[in-house]
Amino acid sequence: MKLTVAQKIIKEHLVTGTMEKGTEIGLRIDQTLTQDSTGTMAYLQFEAMDVDRVKTKKSVAYIDHNMLQAGPENADDHAYIQTVAKKHGIYFSKPGNGICHQVHLERFSVPGQTLIGSDSHTPTCGGIGMLSIGAGGLDVAVAMAGGEYFITMPSMVKVELKGKLKPGVSAKDIILEVLRNFTVKGGVNKIFEYCGEGVKSLSVPDRATITNMGAELGATTSIFPSDENTRAFLKAQGREDVFMELSADEGAEYDEELVINLDELEPLIACPHSPDSVVKVAEVAGKKVNQVAIGSCTNSSLTDMMKVAKILEGKTVAEDVSLVISPGSKQVLNMLAENGALAKLVAAGARILESGCGPCIGMGQAPKTDAVSLRTFNRNFKGRSGTVSADVYLVSPEVAAVAAITGVITDPREYITDFSDIAIPEKYTVNDNLVVSPAEDGSSVEVVRGPNIKPFPKGGALAENLVGKVLIKVEDNITTDHIMPSNAKLLPYRSNIPYLADHCLVPCDPDFPSRAKENGGGVIVAGTNYGQGSSREHAALAPLYLGVRAVVAKSFARIHRQNLINNGIVPLVFKNEADYDTIDLLDELEVANVKGQISGSSLVLVNKTKGLEYEMEIDLTERQQKMLEAGGLLNLMKESNK
Amino acid sequence: MKLTVAQKIIKEHLVTGTMEKGTEIGLRIDQTLTQDSTGTMAYLQFEAMDVDRVKTKKSVAYIDHNMLQAGPENADDHAYIQTVAKKHGIYFSKPGNGICHQVHLERFSVPGQTLIGSDSHTPTCGGIGMLSIGAGGLDVAVAMAGGEYFITMPSMVKVELKGKLKPGVSAKDIILEVLRNFTVKGGVNKIFEYCGEGVKSLSVPDRATITNMGAELGATTSIFPSDENTRAFLKAQGREDVFMELSADEGAEYDEELVINLDELEPLIACPHSPDSVVKVAEVAGKKVNQVAIGSCTNSSLTDMMKVAKILEGKTVAEDVSLVISPGSKQVLNMLAENGALAKLVAAGARILESGCGPCIGMGQAPKTDAVSLRTFNRNFKGRSGTVSADVYLVSPEVAAVAAITGVITDPREYITDFSDIAIPEKYTVNDNLVVSPAEDGSSVEVVRGPNIKPFPKGGALAENLVGKVLIKVEDNITTDHIMPSNAKLLPYRSNIPYLADHCLVPCDPDFPSRAKENGGGVIVAGTNYGQGSSREHAALAPLYLGVRAVVAKSFARIHRQNLINNGIVPLVFKNEADYDTIDLLDELEVANVKGQISGSSLVLVNKTKGLEYEMEIDLTERQQKMLEAGGLLNLMKESNK
Repeated sequence: MKLTVAQKIIKEHLVTGTMEKGTEIGLRIDQTLTQDSTGTMAYLQFEAMDVDRVKTKKSVAYIDHNMLQAGPENADDHAYIQTVAKKHGIYFSKPGNGICHQVHLERFSVPGQTLIGSDSHTPTCGGIGMLSIGAGGLDVAVAMAGGEYFITMPSMVKVELKGKLKPGVSAKDIILEVLRNFTVKGGVNKIFEYCGEGVKSLSVPDRATITNMGAELGATTSIFPSDENTRAFLKAQGREDVFMELSADEGAEYDEELVINLDELEPLIACPHSPDSVVKVAEVAGKKVNQVAIGSCTNSSLTDMMKVAKILEGKTVAEDVSLVISPGSKQVLNMLAENGALAKLVAAGARILESGCGPCIGMGQAPKTDAVSLRTFNRNFKGRSGTVSADVYLVSPEVAAVAAITGVITDPREYITDFSDIAIPEKYTVNDNLVVSPAEDGSSVEVVRGPNIKPFPKGGALAENLVGKVLIKVEDNITTDHIMPSNAKLLPYRSNIPYLADHCLVPCDPDFPSRAKENGGGVIVAGTNYGQGSSREHAALAPLYLGVRAVVAKSFARIHRQNLINNGIVPLVFKNEADYDTIDLLDELEVANVKGQISGSSLVLVNKTKGLEYEMEIDLTERQQKMLEAGGLLNLMKESNK
Repeated sequence: MKLTVAQKIIKEHLVTGTMEKGTEIGLRIDQTLTQDSTGTMAYLQFEAMDVDRVKTKKSVAYIDHNMLQAGPENADDHAYIQTVAKKHGIYFSKPGNGICHQVHLERFSVPGQTLIGSDSHTPTCGGIGMLSIGAGGLDVAVAMAGGEYFITMPSMVKVELKGKLKPGVSAKDIILEVLRNFTVKGGVNKIFEYCGEGVKSLSVPDRATITNMGAELGATTSIFPSDENTRAFLKAQGREDVFMELSADEGAEYDEELVINLDELEPLIACPHSPDSVVKVAEVAGKKVNQVAIGSCTNSSLTDMMKVAKILEGKTVAEDVSLVISPGSKQVLNMLAENGALAKLVAAGARILESGCGPCIGMGQAPKTDAVSLRTFNRNFKGRSGTVSADVYLVSPEVAAVAAITGVITDPREYITDFSDIAIPEKYTVNDNLVVSPAEDGSSVEVVRGPNIKPFPKGGALAENLVGKVLIKVEDNITTDHIMPSNAKLLPYRSNIPYLADHCLVPCDPDFPSRAKENGGGVIVAGTNYGQGSSREHAALAPLYLGVRAVVAKSFARIHRQNLINNGIVPLVFKNEADYDTIDLLDELEVANVKGQISGSSLVLVNKTKGLEYEMEIDLTERQQKMLEAGGLLNLMKESNK
């Protein structure tokens, strides 16, 4: 059988199931990564499994989210993660070492291997030909303990790149073009695989920009072949030994196909408030800009920064613009400081932030009220910047840098003629001294637990009948930023679910947490693509803490649906979307004999208040059924360990 | 008459009064500065005076405090300050351009001129022979409007420096030695003037470290002569034209004298939780350190950073230590990026923060619970770091950098033999493109006011009798950090007094704001040195908003006392300190015929609950009496404009 790149890696790592599209498969996981906003929870769950040492080839714990440290909570979490990592065989990347995806790409990624990470942008390493998937923290904990990672065998989308990008057009524009075509819900249970002549002119960091932001499609992941460019990148990182060539078989079959002619591609921009609201930059040119932010796991590589430095050299940031730049890693920052590019950025008036996620996750640099903010990031959900009234646009580093000078959205092709001198270096500066190796014998390592680290909530076994009132009814495309807001004020509490729960779904309805508590829990009703965005398990843990027993939606985002199941919350999908309209707040819903019913592909949900019956899709694998019955994956694992 | 340096400048700028110690004098002010956490209020007050354009030679508005931007409040304030500055003839230093005192020293300071700033560390420019005084925002507003600045004619302290510092000992140790001798309340109404052979081996940035932290003495200011080192610094900044020589007359008279032999000075350290808890580093050597923070207006000059880079070159920060470095200005950062020093800092594992106040004011980098944090800053008040349980020590950059490597407090002389290659450069990199010049005609400039900017409270004219209950009774050395906490959560609300008032004195008593509201205002009772620390007027404005009519204390810090008077709150001092012990919470106090009584040097305060009478010092100048009668300086100005 002729296979795609992704299928080849899946085949090599298949433990459970067959490679039949739409069926559940279990994969052996070579590497894991966590970041600090999901990591504390993942390691608490890992500790609950009583496994001495991780079973993966390499697991890395990064600190990149909570680096502002407005109170002791962040530093306490860092100390917890540092010590729990040292004890259990996990590498620890200290704050300052950079954004998990950028650092992982540089220093740990291996073509042909599998990686899961408790961050939705884990597909970044698809740029180097690694099968890299975002997952819930509990899934990562299970993988660290040696368990398989279960997904639905995805269908394959072929993205053929023809020609070559023109100056002023870059990798960011390619993924914006894919998003324009597929939308934020067009990628569920799909892998986007890139091929064609155009791939050859894209460096590994370029490719990583594309696979990174492929997360916004809702895709399982995105991947590039591993070729001579891949070898060159690994060689420059001093890691040529892990190179392997990987390409799709001639005649491999795909389920869908998109052709992009790079020669014809123009600079694109995602308008507020969705990454798929994509138009040509030229269409919004002239709009006044208040803030420009360059960085994030999407666009913070050395070559991105070198392009920005070239544009800014000898210029000055516009009087009314605040330009902030976050280099992606210590390696990037170090090299910019060595080669003089950083001095050019500073001289032009850029504010240099730490190597971390920073403004992309609302950790600082919230723009002013009603601001227009141009960002090289991957998400522009309303309010994510920290300023609800701000209009955030997503662009390439070229578009961002030019706008910082002109003060208005500007087609960069007027300013950029040649970037041919900017390429990945022959040799990156390698210095991993901010990566702490695990102890050879962890038994004597004491794990430090600060006062902010609270126990995580656990689900209970499924009752005979699932009964509950409708606690909230929300629209389409509710993101995990709505469900569990993630901003400078709340991120420090990612290891404190009782605190976070009081902010759950508050952007949709400030009374949701109190209503949930008053009613002893209940049911969430939602539109399509519920739970898109981040992989944060907190979007399931906070509802669990509030007693949510089921989410009834028109459709779910992939990672969030699994997070619900992992935590014992039942996800139900309307067979008839019009039923959504008949449900009101505080209607009493019931699934009778829920254990019996969830084994089928559909079940009956009764609206007792309205006297209506709804047919619901449930479509669980046997493993997922058992998880729900047990009240979540951790309970299931404990049962099977008995 | 033989004069000191300070007396010469005072003489040149004297408008009202005579240079008789202890009497009130009014000075002509050449320059003003504000920072953003006090600046919004100062400019709102300036606007209330209806003056088109500032009357000073130069006024500069800096953004250096609120740069984390967790929400839109900070950027809104920046936009307000930027536009109000442009309209009224004030230079605007954009976020990223650096810490006000460091930038002002570099780019705007002039020997022999007068400067007041709405920040207690304004004396920094004393290092260049400028008479530089920290003041309340309202005082700065008045000076911008062309009014005099009134102080008590200070007594003079001569600090004679003999010999020369040994390697590993630096300017920071000199000011720590002065603090060890004089304590945090030993400098009230004094000017510390440095002289002697030892002065010649101190560069202007070294001198500025000393005058900066002289603020911790409670002094009016500190000052150095202007000599060949001053000329060299100004020349390297391209500003030799503003140089003038200034030295004390032979035989000038001082009221007190301290001699420090630099040859014998050892590395010193201020222990928790006061800048005057000074011991030798050797006495606490070996203590484990969790965090090291280098920067702040005290120690963030180019030469400080170059020393740190030399110590860190080729080394790695200890595994359990987080090292953060904030260069003092864009100029410093730019030069470090140009000359390779920044690359050395990054390579060693330092986290590079923006050029701003940052962790010194609790804006980020709060250490973990119970942490030991070594900082090159000027204040280690309990909780100021953002972590109430942390132990913060104040040290020189040398001590900080060595500890970052060893992981424990370490006498740096074991590591440092020679710094003779580190001196101020022949030429600093000058690029003022983050300083926005005011409009030539401001009439068309529209001032931007974000939703967080609320009107400031105004006092009312003094009533016949001053009556009120004791709303709180606090101990000695209460700082403005206690009165109006300043941290990452509250600093963004510096233009919103109603919001801030709910946090007033909460570190001393969480119920104070509600108690004040319930009782319709009242009186604060305090120990010695009440209001030490920052110049923030908010420590008077928030009590004013809560209805506080008087503060009854054993003694006051200079700036805070004036801030109280400026805002119509009566400051009273116990003649008999033992009376303090007889007062309890909610006792009803009264000053009958208060208008009549405040014209004397003492008055009678009646404790109606206890049936006791207390004799109180009041000691107001005629101008201050009028201010209190009118309910504050703004009211007084309006009356006199009628």
